[in-house]
Amino acid sequence: MTTKKTAIKNSKKAVVLLSGGLDSSTTLAIARVEGFDVYAMSFRYGQRNRMELISAENIAKSLGAKQHNIIDIDLRLFGASALTADIDVPKDRTENEMSENIPITYVPARNTIFLSYALAWAEVLEADTIFIGVNAIDYSGYPDCRPEYIVAYQQMANLATQAAVEGKTKLTIRTPLINKTKAEIIKIGTALGVDYSLTLSCYDPDTEGRACSSCDSCQLRKKGFEDADVPDPTRYQ
Amino acid sequence: MTTKKTAIKNSKKAVVLLSGGLDSSTTLAIARVEGFDVYAMSFRYGQRNRMELISAENIAKSLGAKQHNIIDIDLRLFGASALTADIDVPKDRTENEMSENIPITYVPARNTIFLSYALAWAEVLEADTIFIGVNAIDYSGYPDCRPEYIVAYQQMANLATQAAVEGKTKLTIRTPLINKTKAEIIKIGTALGVDYSLTLSCYDPDTEGRACSSCDSCQLRKKGFEDADVPDPTRYQ
Repeated sequence: MTTKKTAIKNSKKAVVLLSGGLDSSTTLAIARVEGFDVYAMSFRYGQRNRMELISAENIAKSLGAKQHNIIDIDLRLFGASALTADIDVPKDRTENEMSENIPITYVPARNTIFLSYALAWAEVLEADTIFIGVNAIDYSGYPDCRPEYIVAYQQMANLATQAAVEGKTKLTIRTPLINKTKAEIIKIGTALGVDYSLTLSCYDPDTEGRACSSCDSCQLRKKGFEDADVPDPTRYQ
Repeated sequence: MTTKKTAIKNSKKAVVLLSGGLDSSTTLAIARVEGFDVYAMSFRYGQRNRMELISAENIAKSLGAKQHNIIDIDLRLFGASALTADIDVPKDRTENEMSENIPITYVPARNTIFLSYALAWAEVLEADTIFIGVNAIDYSGYPDCRPEYIVAYQQMANLATQAAVEGKTKLTIRTPLINKTKAEIIKIGTALGVDYSLTLSCYDPDTEGRACSSCDSCQLRKKGFEDADVPDPTRYQ
């Protein structure tokens, strides 16, 4: 389905998981600068924050993704998370409070489900790379953001598909941000020309897509811009 | 959500992947006889064979599943399989032809996606067991039916969830049929009282749910009943 009329010969393909937030947008920019044709993938999964899909679309366009696929899935079936159910998003928590427990914004097996769709698409595209913007530093609370989880996923993925069994491709799951601080991520993305005003990290934005400034995600993001000494372009309420 | 009014004290919970075919129905019966409360999970994934979901419902009821969840997913996005796209299902192939290649009825990353939903549901239910009726003998063509794939999946799953990280549960993926022949499976299920007339294995049934008798799946099933010396209750066209 891809036309072969582009001047650039390079045709490495990567599937990039894109939420429309700061980390996944920076990850997409990294994949592009490394020469990948990017197939961006987002999910409509009953999240309260619908605005983030608009951010994802704008970022995919602005960073030159070949294709952007929004998949409908129904995680509401599984209940029990502030991101999908009717539980209040925690606000104004201290850093200690954030790091103590797995946050209630955790969605069961979310990255496992997302990566499984990415794996299916990668197989059809004959792409041998999946990028995911997980980060183990600022968000050590999520089990499916840790390096050992990603390694185990990659191992499983290389036993799962026809392409792998036939030895055609060895799939690599790339996590370029896994050991970076938020400030480092912002510096990298700024150098690569990411327009962070297009991204949305807030768990509880208003209907105009403006950030609340006090949920965990807003706090980490704000501090990241401060630490990076980069002007914060986020639109706050 | 589960009522605690049942007389039986045992409350081991298992998620059982249920297609409505012979293997998954037998697997459900095995989980029941081992004392599990069964949470059956099926998928509406654009398969041409919609009748198999009706079979799944009937089997879940007849074998006393606590709950049966049918999840909508859209694998058509990924194209390229006779089970979802507009490609003819191969008929009347010899056993050699069947075993030579991965069949075109393969759906990219299907079991990986199915297991990921099962994992999410297991976490919410606090179930520590997932049953899947994969079989490596009659269908060695599918990469995601092999023991090494299941082992790798289980390893990943135990790093993926909040329950695993907190050490609350160690998840086990059970594949009781993985090394059984179709005839052995039929004998086990018959002993456990599975009503195989409710199950549907055919890739290309008619609108009444009657089997074609000549696709790979029908051929393997017919031979299974013959080899097991059990009367074949399948309704053929």
